[in-house]
Parts: sequence; C-alpha cells; structure tokens
Amino acid sequence: MKIYLGCVLLVGVLSGLAFAQNSLEKEQSKLLQVDAEFSRYSVEKGPAVAFAAYLADDSVLLPMGENPISGKQAIVNYFSQGEYTLEWKPLRAEVAKSGEMGYTYGTSELRTKDKDGKTQVRYYKYVSVWKKQKNGDWKLALDIGNQNPAPAQT
Amino acid sequence: MKIYLGCVLLVGVLSGLAFAQNSLEKEQSKLLQVDAEFSRYSVEKGPAVAFAAYLADDSVLLPMGENPISGKQAIVNYFSQGEYTLEWKPLRAEVAKSGEMGYTYGTSELRTKDKDGKTQVRYYKYVSVWKKQKNGDWKLALDIGNQNPAPAQT
Repeated sequence: MKIYLGCVLLVGVLSGLAFAQNSLEKEQSKLLQVDAEFSRYSVEKGPAVAFAAYLADDSVLLPMGENPISGKQAIVNYFSQGEYTLEWKPLRAEVAKSGEMGYTYGTSELRTKDKDGKTQVRYYKYVSVWKKQKNGDWKLALDIGNQNPAPAQT
Repeated sequence: MKIYLGCVLLVGVLSGLAFAQNSLEKEQSKLLQVDAEFSRYSVEKGPAVAFAAYLADDSVLLPMGENPISGKQAIVNYFSQGEYTLEWKPLRAEVAKSGEMGYTYGTSELRTKDKDGKTQVRYYKYVSVWKKQKNGDWKLALDIGNQNPAPAQT
C-alpha cells in the first residue's frame, strides 16, 4: 500500500514533466505553428497588436542598438513606433523534454515605405525563447534579432 | 509486484526528467557559471579556442549581417578571423524543468586595437541556447548577438 501510494504520488508529481518523444515532436510542430501564426497576425494587425497578444507578462526584448526592454507593455510600446510591416518565418523549433520551455529561430523582413511610396525591405534573423503558460498557450519570453543579408534571388 | 515493477519502471524512465525546484535553481546557477567561465576562457585563449571548447557539434551561430552558420568547425572558423578580444557577462540563465535545455543572455564587449594601438570597444548583447550533453556538460547550441549602447558611465 505504501509502495502504491508512493507510486501514485510519483505519477502525480512527475506527470507534468513527462513527455514522450512523440508528444515532444508534436509540441515542436505546434511551437513552429504558433510562431508562424504570430507572424501572420503581425502582418494583419501590425507588430504592436501581435506582440501584445503573444508576449508573456515578464518578457524581455533585446532590440538592435538599444538596451534590453523588460515587460510586456514596454515592449508593445517599442513596437508601436512608426509605420512598418514585420513578417517572419520560423526555420526551427525545439522544446525541452519537460514541455514548458522552447525556442524558435528564423528570418524576418521589415518593410517600410520611402517618401516616394516605394517599399523598402530590410532583412533580419531572430531567436525567440518561449514559455508554456498554465493554460497551455505558448508565450514569447525573450526575443532578439540581428541583420541578415538579402536572400539570394532564385 | 506488478505495481512495484511499474513503479520501478516509472522511476527509471522519468528520473532523467525529474528536477526538483531546488536542483533546478542549482542548475541555473551552474549554467550562469558555465557561461561566465566560457567568457573567461575566451579572454584568456581567444574566442576561437573558447568556442571550440564550448560549442555543441550541431550548433548554429546567427552572426550579425551574415547568414546563419551551422556546425562547430564552421563557427570556430568564423571566430578565427582577425585579432580581437571578446568578453561577455551573462545576466540571466534559465533551465527547463527537464534539465537538458536552457538559455543565457547578457552583454558583451568586442575589443580591437586601432592602427595607433589604441583599444576600441564595441558593445553587444546576446542570447545563447544551451543543451546538456550525455556526460553532463552544458554546450552551446545556438548563439545570436546584436549591438548594444555603451554602458552608462558611473
């Protein structure tokens, strides 16, 4: 009986940590998909609205040429500056076996209009660290990007 | 007996995943320390030697202004270019509950000598994703940095 109770306890404590390889792969596909949806939302509604929806409350942004920015609202304010489109493409997602932490990385494009109304594109790449929330949603915990060359023309 | 065996099996399967909060905090302190030692090694031996020691075989570097570089040797070659000192300071480390994935972020300084022998400093920040290897060592799996303002003078 003691062993049985110990076993039940063990199952209870560890079930939150237990991820089979199969469900880990599913979770990685899901995180890739979440990041891709985040990008689509950014293109549709603008980066500020999209980051407001996907950021964890205690997230940190490491913006190019600026000091780190901490906290959801401060980061949303950062993305509220100016008129631009930000779109990205996750290339890879990986999730820890415990299923509550993961990262994505990929390439991104910032599009602005110059004074003649012509679209200017700048190229970047990024790493995002994600944390799964208590309700099961993945939220962005840490984000950094830097300059990337323009993709080769095909 | 069946329950007992099931319990043993469960312990066997999950023990690799089981991290109490206490050991998680220890692991986070350890990862901070590993990243700080990595920086000291970089200052002592040069970035190429340090990255050769700390990179995972399948690591990816996302260098500023260049396409992603995949694989330990290619990354070591990248850091072998030129004469410079690279030093950094991890500000935070976090480890997944399963204990095999974590990240650090912090600030870094690149020091070069100009033609008059005067030291020039450029400031950056970075995010590193780490993976614990089978032998228990933390190795760098993904690394990205970007420009940071010079720190405020105190």
